[in-house]
Amino acid sequence: MPFSMTNASIPVFEIVLNALSGVLDKAEAFATAKKIEPSVLLGMRLAPDMFALTRQVQVACDQAKNGAARLAGVEPPKYEDNETTIAQLKERIAKTVAFLKSLDGKAIDASADKEITFPLGPSKGQMIGADYLNHFVLPNFYFHATAAYAILRHAGVELGKRDFLAGIPIKRI
Amino acid sequence: MPFSMTNASIPVFEIVLNALSGVLDKAEAFATAKKIEPSVLLGMRLAPDMFALTRQVQVACDQAKNGAARLAGVEPPKYEDNETTIAQLKERIAKTVAFLKSLDGKAIDASADKEITFPLGPSKGQMIGADYLNHFVLPNFYFHATAAYAILRHAGVELGKRDFLAGIPIKRI
Repeated sequence: MPFSMTNASIPVFEIVLNALSGVLDKAEAFATAKKIEPSVLLGMRLAPDMFALTRQVQVACDQAKNGAARLAGVEPPKYEDNETTIAQLKERIAKTVAFLKSLDGKAIDASADKEITFPLGPSKGQMIGADYLNHFVLPNFYFHATAAYAILRHAGVELGKRDFLAGIPIKRI
Repeated sequence: MPFSMTNASIPVFEIVLNALSGVLDKAEAFATAKKIEPSVLLGMRLAPDMFALTRQVQVACDQAKNGAARLAGVEPPKYEDNETTIAQLKERIAKTVAFLKSLDGKAIDASADKEITFPLGPSKGQMIGADYLNHFVLPNFYFHATAAYAILRHAGVELGKRDFLAGIPIKRI
């Protein structure tokens, strides 16, 4: 089944998160070359009321982790938001990807018309699984992954769209 | 069928593009209030080698239009990239949404394992339909929609995540 709830979530998160890990490698190399404290990059943001880079990466991970867990009917594990280095953020990404791989694809596929209840600010949101994936988890996930990438582009790190789309199953002809 | 190629594409594009149209309304109001030429906002970019706002909106529209058309087995219409005002960009969004609504959902659903060939820079890319949607069209679409939003946040327009996610089918409980 090439198109399924599982295929539209787990490999998408894995590929984009692993690409983000590669983007963070380029940020680390940029900081070294420019003799910048990497923590300066981690604290950068595009607007005063937007998240800094560290938080963008944490939230991108959490959207994938929490979204996929809820679709699979599993309580999402809580990760402490205590990363202060690029290496630690890369570990969080790796930990998130390992967790995603542990989820039961059949349970995710069975969730398309199941009601999903999830925390939403001070209250809760409710959507059927398919809508939750299409209209909440994926847009939020991509929002924070793109914001992380855009902060680094804005900071001058040499990145291209190929870094954002690294690892996609494409055949160039 | 709550989860399908059609449901994972057409309403997603519609909702996000209509939300982007609302974001552009806020940009217009901001320009008026601050006595800024709206064209200044349209020319803003997050990095010298990233697209300006106008191009981000055009490309977000085109990712939706071209992606959905190819999945439906239809030649995507070409839109001239000649917008110079916010009103014209909103028209382009409206035209894109109208085109998306005209596509045959059954053809899109039948494309999951069909080979899709599409222009990719100077050459071509090839992916099966499900992969094309999950790993090319959606990430590219969200990338440019988020970049457009982020440019305006960066410019000082008062926007929140709710503007980005406006119109999603969520029940707040």
